[in-house]
Amino acid sequence: MPACPLCEGAGGELLHQAQAWRLVLADEPEWPGLLRLIWTEHVVELSDLTEPQALELLQVLRRVERVLRDELSPDKVNVASLGNQVPHLHVHIVPRWRDDLTFPASIWTRPEPAAQAHGPLNAQTNTHANIQTNPPSNRQTNTQSRADAAAARRQSTVERLPALRRALVESLRFSH
Amino acid sequence: MPACPLCEGAGGELLHQAQAWRLVLADEPEWPGLLRLIWTEHVVELSDLTEPQALELLQVLRRVERVLRDELSPDKVNVASLGNQVPHLHVHIVPRWRDDLTFPASIWTRPEPAAQAHGPLNAQTNTHANIQTNPPSNRQTNTQSRADAAAARRQSTVERLPALRRALVESLRFSH
Repeated sequence: MPACPLCEGAGGELLHQAQAWRLVLADEPEWPGLLRLIWTEHVVELSDLTEPQALELLQVLRRVERVLRDELSPDKVNVASLGNQVPHLHVHIVPRWRDDLTFPASIWTRPEPAAQAHGPLNAQTNTHANIQTNPPSNRQTNTQSRADAAAARRQSTVERLPALRRALVESLRFSH
Repeated sequence: MPACPLCEGAGGELLHQAQAWRLVLADEPEWPGLLRLIWTEHVVELSDLTEPQALELLQVLRRVERVLRDELSPDKVNVASLGNQVPHLHVHIVPRWRDDLTFPASIWTRPEPAAQAHGPLNAQTNTHANIQTNPPSNRQTNTQSRADAAAARRQSTVERLPALRRALVESLRFSH
């Protein structure tokens, strides 16, 4: 069995360590504010947890999402347990804004490399597993200003991370 | 406020309707077996639910995931509440296989159009929000056989959908 990076490392900046789980702030420069709730035990799927364990995960998840909303006021929160690359149960909790790099696509939908370097954002909103199949209405609009807006959004989010950290640590301090 | 497609329509093939939620089999030919658990009330985020509501959602989710695993034996299950395009609370429950169209990337990571038509799969495993940043080791291997394998996987999954439907309907029949 290959080594598991979430058994061997924190997986980000540790904000709180409870017995059964930890919360980390991910080191993802393009997605500041991305949190990961990581189960301590090496289990793979949500349905591998016992019911009390799953309930604990849910309660922490809801609390974290609430703090994230209070502190960053995102337009949407994305919550996902994927684990295709690291099959150790962890939940991504991602603040999203209409002017971020890939909205309304997922954060896993790669923008054109040029967009990441302030070039055109060729919005790759794919239709797989989306309910709406219309292309985004802004695909033909000013892509340079879109990239600039995404950069500004990242910057303003980075500036709010200290407050987010403080609020999360405070909110979770009695969680064992 | 624009019309909400999940208030106005089922959002897929209805498998079970409870008072607070419904389960549908999505109409996504590239992702057979993709299920959506849709909250009846138009709420946006998980943390908009009351605690008893969230608990009910969790219990159904775990039951559905368990049936999905029993019936389809996927290599991984992906669970995600995104809602950027349709901000009405719904959870995607997606069986994944190592030989599917985009594994280990997300289903929202678009493969090259050619891959969908049995051409090369230029595996777009992006590094955003991934823990591992290494490119997939198979990027340079036989892409045609990869596309063929994905097509075969879709076909074998489609053949198992009747059993999946029956098992889900049976499992949820007493859920009001």
